[in-house]
Amino acid sequence: MAATVLNLGLIGAGRIGRVHAANIVHRIPAARLAAVVDVVEPAAELLAEQYQVPTAGSDYQAILADPAIDAVVICSATDTHAPIIVDAAAAGKHIFCEKPIDHTLAKIDQALAAVEQASVKLQIGFNRRFDASYARVRQAVAEGEIGAPHLMHIISRDPAPPPLDYLKVSGGIFLDMTIHDFDMARFLMGCEVTEVYTVGGVLVDPQIGAVGDLDTALITLTFENGAYGVIDNSRRAAYGYDQRVEILGSLGSIATGNNYPNSAVISTASAICRDLPYNFFMERYTESYVRELSDFVDAILHDRSVPVSGEDGRVPVVMGLAAAKSYREHRPVRLDEITA
Amino acid sequence: MAATVLNLGLIGAGRIGRVHAANIVHRIPAARLAAVVDVVEPAAELLAEQYQVPTAGSDYQAILADPAIDAVVICSATDTHAPIIVDAAAAGKHIFCEKPIDHTLAKIDQALAAVEQASVKLQIGFNRRFDASYARVRQAVAEGEIGAPHLMHIISRDPAPPPLDYLKVSGGIFLDMTIHDFDMARFLMGCEVTEVYTVGGVLVDPQIGAVGDLDTALITLTFENGAYGVIDNSRRAAYGYDQRVEILGSLGSIATGNNYPNSAVISTASAICRDLPYNFFMERYTESYVRELSDFVDAILHDRSVPVSGEDGRVPVVMGLAAAKSYREHRPVRLDEITA
Amino acid sequence: MAATVLNLGLIGAGRIGRVHAANIVHRIPAARLAAVVDVVEPAAELLAEQYQVPTAGSDYQAILADPAIDAVVICSATDTHAPIIVDAAAAGKHIFCEKPIDHTLAKIDQALAAVEQASVKLQIGFNRRFDASYARVRQAVAEGEIGAPHLMHIISRDPAPPPLDYLKVSGGIFLDMTIHDFDMARFLMGCEVTEVYTVGGVLVDPQIGAVGDLDTALITLTFENGAYGVIDNSRRAAYGYDQRVEILGSLGSIATGNNYPNSAVISTASAICRDLPYNFFMERYTESYVRELSDFVDAILHDRSVPVSGEDGRVPVVMGLAAAKSYREHRPVRLDEITA
Amino acid sequence: MAATVLNLGLIGAGRIGRVHAANIVHRIPAARLAAVVDVVEPAAELLAEQYQVPTAGSDYQAILADPAIDAVVICSATDTHAPIIVDAAAAGKHIFCEKPIDHTLAKIDQALAAVEQASVKLQIGFNRRFDASYARVRQAVAEGEIGAPHLMHIISRDPAPPPLDYLKVSGGIFLDMTIHDFDMARFLMGCEVTEVYTVGGVLVDPQIGAVGDLDTALITLTFENGAYGVIDNSRRAAYGYDQRVEILGSLGSIATGNNYPNSAVISTASAICRDLPYNFFMERYTESYVRELSDFVDAILHDRSVPVSGEDGRVPVVMGLAAAKSYREHRPVRLDEITA
Repeated sequence: MAATVLNLGLIGAGRIGRVHAANIVHRIPAARLAAVVDVVEPAAELLAEQYQVPTAGSDYQAILADPAIDAVVICSATDTHAPIIVDAAAAGKHIFCEKPIDHTLAKIDQALAAVEQASVKLQIGFNRRFDASYARVRQAVAEGEIGAPHLMHIISRDPAPPPLDYLKVSGGIFLDMTIHDFDMARFLMGCEVTEVYTVGGVLVDPQIGAVGDLDTALITLTFENGAYGVIDNSRRAAYGYDQRVEILGSLGSIATGNNYPNSAVISTASAICRDLPYNFFMERYTESYVRELSDFVDAILHDRSVPVSGEDGRVPVVMGLAAAKSYREHRPVRLDEITA
Repeated sequence: MAATVLNLGLIGAGRIGRVHAANIVHRIPAARLAAVVDVVEPAAELLAEQYQVPTAGSDYQAILADPAIDAVVICSATDTHAPIIVDAAAAGKHIFCEKPIDHTLAKIDQALAAVEQASVKLQIGFNRRFDASYARVRQAVAEGEIGAPHLMHIISRDPAPPPLDYLKVSGGIFLDMTIHDFDMARFLMGCEVTEVYTVGGVLVDPQIGAVGDLDTALITLTFENGAYGVIDNSRRAAYGYDQRVEILGSLGSIATGNNYPNSAVISTASAICRDLPYNFFMERYTESYVRELSDFVDAILHDRSVPVSGEDGRVPVVMGLAAAKSYREHRPVRLDEITA
Repeated sequence: MAATVLNLGLIGAGRIGRVHAANIVHRIPAARLAAVVDVVEPAAELLAEQYQVPTAGSDYQAILADPAIDAVVICSATDTHAPIIVDAAAAGKHIFCEKPIDHTLAKIDQALAAVEQASVKLQIGFNRRFDASYARVRQAVAEGEIGAPHLMHIISRDPAPPPLDYLKVSGGIFLDMTIHDFDMARFLMGCEVTEVYTVGGVLVDPQIGAVGDLDTALITLTFENGAYGVIDNSRRAAYGYDQRVEILGSLGSIATGNNYPNSAVISTASAICRDLPYNFFMERYTESYVRELSDFVDAILHDRSVPVSGEDGRVPVVMGLAAAKSYREHRPVRLDEITA
Repeated sequence: MAATVLNLGLIGAGRIGRVHAANIVHRIPAARLAAVVDVVEPAAELLAEQYQVPTAGSDYQAILADPAIDAVVICSATDTHAPIIVDAAAAGKHIFCEKPIDHTLAKIDQALAAVEQASVKLQIGFNRRFDASYARVRQAVAEGEIGAPHLMHIISRDPAPPPLDYLKVSGGIFLDMTIHDFDMARFLMGCEVTEVYTVGGVLVDPQIGAVGDLDTALITLTFENGAYGVIDNSRRAAYGYDQRVEILGSLGSIATGNNYPNSAVISTASAICRDLPYNFFMERYTESYVRELSDFVDAILHDRSVPVSGEDGRVPVVMGLAAAKSYREHRPVRLDEITA
């Protein structure tokens, strides 16, 4: 691509869409936010006004029809991801799509096939891969600093459950929350998971159980490299957003801690204390959102492969479906039991 | 009991026997080491000489026959624990016995029945309950500092595998190593485990597999209070003995770290570093060995209940057998499937 | 001021000038970078092109003459600060000026008088006040969390000495480096210093001594509230930029640590290590530069007092001169010995 | 010395005397507590009964006259140290003496001369040298891990002031409290201090001022190797005993933290907290008391030099007198200004 600035069309002006918009405008010099659409048109217009985006509307087809747009950033509702990917690919647009691609493998596979056929680039929004601490863990594993991996713990706890209305349509804890951890597990370990086993329940809020979801889970992972891992999920950690990982390898271990708004430690006659960690993903993962989109833009401008592929978007959905099946059937479930 | 000093007979002068002997002599004013026996008589004599113990021999029956002896400390080979308990109970001696009581439930139940019938006190050597950090966790859970427990992680990694000769007779990782963690799980959570699920393998040393054991395992626990937990075991952590626990509750979490020989942090142009943690259980759990035996002595002198009962010695064996069965059968196993 | 966006003219397009330019353009929606000048005109032009600044040149008078400019950001060489302040005040422009205002009190007082007479706002660039950790310390002291302050340590060490050419004109370690710490001392303690005592020498690099400066110093502070403090300065900490503070008060203490690029801890058979802290002020204090300028912009737009006054710029220079005098005369020096 | 067990006579059965007695009896197999005296004879008798010491009395001359006693441990009131040392040396006994030797140099020099003439060994009770963390710092400096030392901080804060009756006779903060830190400064740095400068006051309790003492001080140190240091003393840290050190060297830094009774970290909706550090020297420095006396015993049994010499006991007194003089005269004071 000869251009030195990439023209992006944003589809979806909700919470995560606004994060990406701000990053495109302020933090990524090589990108330009050229258009924004949202099914709620005023949301698109508001965002367009805020960032002086020339075009705003409610129909993403307008963006796909605009020859000046090089790529789209899909931040719309999950069930629209797959059809928009299909359409964007057909229109020859490169695609950045929020996770998950979809909740059903058939629709995911259809979308990935469309991308393949159109030879456009597709990157999935697994932003945690771009977090400095997790990237450091990946580096340690990849470079052999801790030897061959043996055991992994992923701690991933939200500060509070999402609204019940969201939980009713989220696809369940394994597809809306654990999916990030499934991606982390594959990414950090550098290999695939072959089997999962899930225990869990409703310990935080019975209303979550009433809508058919869990709020607490432990998912055991068997990796194809022979290692084992466990994901620890809770919808509520009283002290805030808790996001950590630890891997034991043959030569040692690597472990990350939480990120804090300040480093002050206060010692009084009661205890030695520090303030709570960053409360939620917006604060904790701020920089990772910039880096993922910046890398996407670079991948297109310099025709490099994207750092999170369509396959990387598909596998965690398989893992989520397997984890749910394991929970329902109270037995270990192999990933190859899950088919489209 | 009218006496103000308890006369103890030590049965077994091996590694852990010598630890208890030193503690009785030097750290527990209310106890006196009155006799020591070992099947290898010179080992008993050496220890007797070192601590000016009046009586040494090779036959524990001599200790049981001595009316001046109030209680025995059993540190002999595991397969002798149960019969010695039976004999000691019949002789009216109070009993401190190293873990595990035995590898088979039938023999354990026989021993516990003998204790019950003789109305003597029996304490099992789960010393970690007396470690200051784990005791603090128990306190936090018991007093509700973290609310209702939801999720638990127990990290328990040895610095290096034991000798292969030991592994051939140890009863396997779940009965020789995880048994401490099973006890911790019950103790810290304050309730029973109802089901376990085990994954694991041979990642550290193929010779361990050759003798039919594992060296790496993750055991998922389902507690009767609705919480879930996971035990992480490795026969080798390159950086030393790694013993930590973390519990998430409805009001917060509590987590312990390792113990270090010094607190110095060295910062150079390469990294910010500290020295390795204490290398093994002798250094890490030094104080807990004193406290467990001191509490045993107090329980007898003041006719109080012992802090680790015979049932506390039995249940972790059930858990170990269930964990092994789960591994073999590749499925979750309920503890009530394990019967004598 | 009726305007909702403040038009800023940047004077000086060097390192710190470029930091402020980027922040104005990308991070402070309420400000607009309307003009930039530098004595090296191509530097101004380059920056103007990068950020689409409409006006670039070499003469700051052009900025002062432009009625569309509301305020100036002075990032030129230190010896030009005072005359530019005088001229800017005369032109009715509000002023943000990098520290130090000047090395001589007479010129500082002249500048402050001009500001006073013109009734414009003047803020000095002591960015560390806006660092989240130091702000937390200030809050703890101000709100009495640690009671009445008794003792303070400020650790302030650079990763490496600046170029010798800079050291020849910097005004010496107390005016170019410690000046930030003098500001911190007053700010965190919430009161003035009455006396200083300095020891120090040339331990890092004899070339620094050859140009008449020190590279290592301890400065004892006596505060008017009865507390005492010490500033620890080194031109080179092998492990990177080391910026910490600790205050002991009657009810406890507060202490800050360094900031790190990631939270990963790697444990191997050698040691338990983490990566080095952020290497220098650009990375460590990134956010504080945004906040100081954002607060300046808000102060003008909403006619509030600026958070770092001209007096706040003057006193640390007095402290620097007193510290240098103490070092030369090898005795404690009261601040009131330093007069214009 | 042919004997394999050293017979010790304890002079003084107060708090520290009882610590040493317990360590001799329980922790140092090569030593035997053969006699104890105290001016309050019942105190000696109580201790003798507790540890089955054969001889108890009120007159230390009885110990000196007993040919079976190899060495004395002097734990009596400070003003008796020097005359007892003189007498013990004349009696040919090796001597372990608590710090400080005395408050006046003339008496110290007299005592050291007597020791020299009698060719007996004298060790001073600076136990902190035997603390694992401080020993690690000394090792790092001695082995060049942090290069040439440049700057040192010693934080040494008590949890609460001693009784006023003690303060009236203690010799003042510099001789009763800072003296340990003066020893640490020389020991850790591996060279002498040439000059001190003191600031301080009465911030903790006006009653301390009323008896002519300070409760808060900062003492700047100039070392003969060119390094500088500062000692931070407070009679009261609300959070407990605070004992830390940090040294910056040309290749990096080393810093120690406090010791804690447990490692548990509790996270709730309020803060991330841990329990307070060990409250006072008995708990914090437990092991160091064992090691210092064990090393003393070994030094005599194997005719090696003692690890803390009489000169090591003298110099910190010089430093204390210089620090007091600096405070009184409000100026830096060279140590060579202090003469007997």
